[in-house]
Amino acid sequence: MGGDHAPRALVRGVGEAVDSVAGLGPVTLVGDEAAIRRELALIGKADHPLLGIVHAPEVVGMDEPPSAAIRAKKRSSITVAMELVKQGQAAAVVSAGNTGATLMAATVKLRTLPGIERAAIATLLPHRRGRFVMLDSGANSEAKPEHLVHFAVMGDIYARHILGIAKPRVGLLSNGTEDEKGNELTKAAFGLLRQVPTLEFVGNVEGNCLFEGKVDVVVCDGFTGNVVLKTAEGLAKLLSRLLKEKLKKNPLRLMGGMLAYGALRELRQIGDYTEYGGAPFLGVNGVVFKCHGGSNAKAVRNAIRVAHEFVSRDINNQIVRSVQALHFAPATAG
Amino acid sequence: MGGDHAPRALVRGVGEAVDSVAGLGPVTLVGDEAAIRRELALIGKADHPLLGIVHAPEVVGMDEPPSAAIRAKKRSSITVAMELVKQGQAAAVVSAGNTGATLMAATVKLRTLPGIERAAIATLLPHRRGRFVMLDSGANSEAKPEHLVHFAVMGDIYARHILGIAKPRVGLLSNGTEDEKGNELTKAAFGLLRQVPTLEFVGNVEGNCLFEGKVDVVVCDGFTGNVVLKTAEGLAKLLSRLLKEKLKKNPLRLMGGMLAYGALRELRQIGDYTEYGGAPFLGVNGVVFKCHGGSNAKAVRNAIRVAHEFVSRDINNQIVRSVQALHFAPATAG
Repeated sequence: MGGDHAPRALVRGVGEAVDSVAGLGPVTLVGDEAAIRRELALIGKADHPLLGIVHAPEVVGMDEPPSAAIRAKKRSSITVAMELVKQGQAAAVVSAGNTGATLMAATVKLRTLPGIERAAIATLLPHRRGRFVMLDSGANSEAKPEHLVHFAVMGDIYARHILGIAKPRVGLLSNGTEDEKGNELTKAAFGLLRQVPTLEFVGNVEGNCLFEGKVDVVVCDGFTGNVVLKTAEGLAKLLSRLLKEKLKKNPLRLMGGMLAYGALRELRQIGDYTEYGGAPFLGVNGVVFKCHGGSNAKAVRNAIRVAHEFVSRDINNQIVRSVQALHFAPATAG
Repeated sequence: MGGDHAPRALVRGVGEAVDSVAGLGPVTLVGDEAAIRRELALIGKADHPLLGIVHAPEVVGMDEPPSAAIRAKKRSSITVAMELVKQGQAAAVVSAGNTGATLMAATVKLRTLPGIERAAIATLLPHRRGRFVMLDSGANSEAKPEHLVHFAVMGDIYARHILGIAKPRVGLLSNGTEDEKGNELTKAAFGLLRQVPTLEFVGNVEGNCLFEGKVDVVVCDGFTGNVVLKTAEGLAKLLSRLLKEKLKKNPLRLMGGMLAYGALRELRQIGDYTEYGGAPFLGVNGVVFKCHGGSNAKAVRNAIRVAHEFVSRDINNQIVRSVQALHFAPATAG
């Protein structure tokens, strides 16, 4: 029931998913039963054998304070959906709702994986030749050095199995590329990350390196990740708006803009999040994908496809084993 | 002698400044005397009454590690220039050289202002309708809550006197706009900032708010500020490069791009740093402006103009008095 186009975009995305995702099991739609039934009827899937409905009478609004909402609304669609995973009646949750509430419901109901203290939001961002995954993009506003190592391990597994990158290059977001750069957190994390033999750790990366395609996985605390994500969104929006204004200044420019429309459209598409559909909360003891609030049916369908892959490849089990295998030398002075 | 086009761009910028900045006093060029003389002769200013030269035989390279370079090269142009300010023979330093080395030389030679523990780099960034100042953009990778308050006070004074904003709106960079958002540092700073009656403190701002023109001053620690700055630079570069590639895909688009060239050029100009020329190191006991390494004569001229204004308006004295006037209620639990 979450997101800007619920329940329509979600129901349609589910409809597309059962038609197109090979090997997909049953999908349970959680929310207002009557509204969901209406939407299913509209797409001719009222009696689809893979589709079920679990009624949840409450909805957490997009702007509600997460912890208060999750505490107050025990029968909200997001809480009921997490409960299905907890009870083993579902393998994954896909939500386009309030990010904080989804995260809160996930960590309260499902907790974290063994060996993992903090979950992280893993977001895909564009670079010159493809995409990189940045985590934590905002689940937690503080992190310890070992959390960043866990983020690196989780991001590496995600990049291998979901993005299909054979040997993901992992970078640590810092304020300079030299080894000695960083704040207390990143300096300590740097010392740990270089000890992980399974990672292709390339060292510190700066904000401008991100978009050059030199790394596939970037780790940072959730405060910094949120700031990077929002800064990039804000700047892209500013540039797009200013370009539109400047093209409208005279008819010649406007005609130029029309002739170059394909290029501008392709440029806008590099920020397209619908291909992978959602950002996983990595480290949660369950599979949770958060779609953008503005998601359309395509984004929802693809989030379901990726969540299905995530479950099929048993990625959480791989994360647990990789984290168990971590072993660090005792810290030495200097 | 620093920067990508030294000494030519610097000498020419100085030449333009003495011709155009009203009330400007003598300008001392610090560096290789023969090279500077040659450049001055080329612009017909070999015997200009306002221009002097102080020879400095060494140069800190753009990529040299700052602290080692400052320690090893006692006669580098940047160190000698700072020494002139320290001895009262100059009122300000303008440099286009190695940022870290300039900062190191400034803090070693000049120290910070009374009441200020940490200097901050104040950078101008574009928003929808103008510019905002962000500090610290990278002087220190760690900050305490009271440092952020000092940054706010310094940024406010800078925005009033240099940007001419009567009542600058000051925001605290955070991972959400709600009052309770933030990490430990920003939460503590939030509590202090709301107690400063002279500031128009608007609360937490997110990365995407920056470019909307809702704030004139944004404070953050230097690690975060560096990441924001570099992320914005990197994304702008990526988009510009991709647009060029996409326009070249076919002749129609290319013609469109040519017709819309004015719009694209104007868009590129929003990142133009030459108008104000340089970023001040606020909080240093002296006036230090750091120009972009790629600065041309115009940027240098404008940095000198702004540095002159900074001195004329006695901004450092205003900072000292404002910081002395700060008074915080004792911290309470919760």
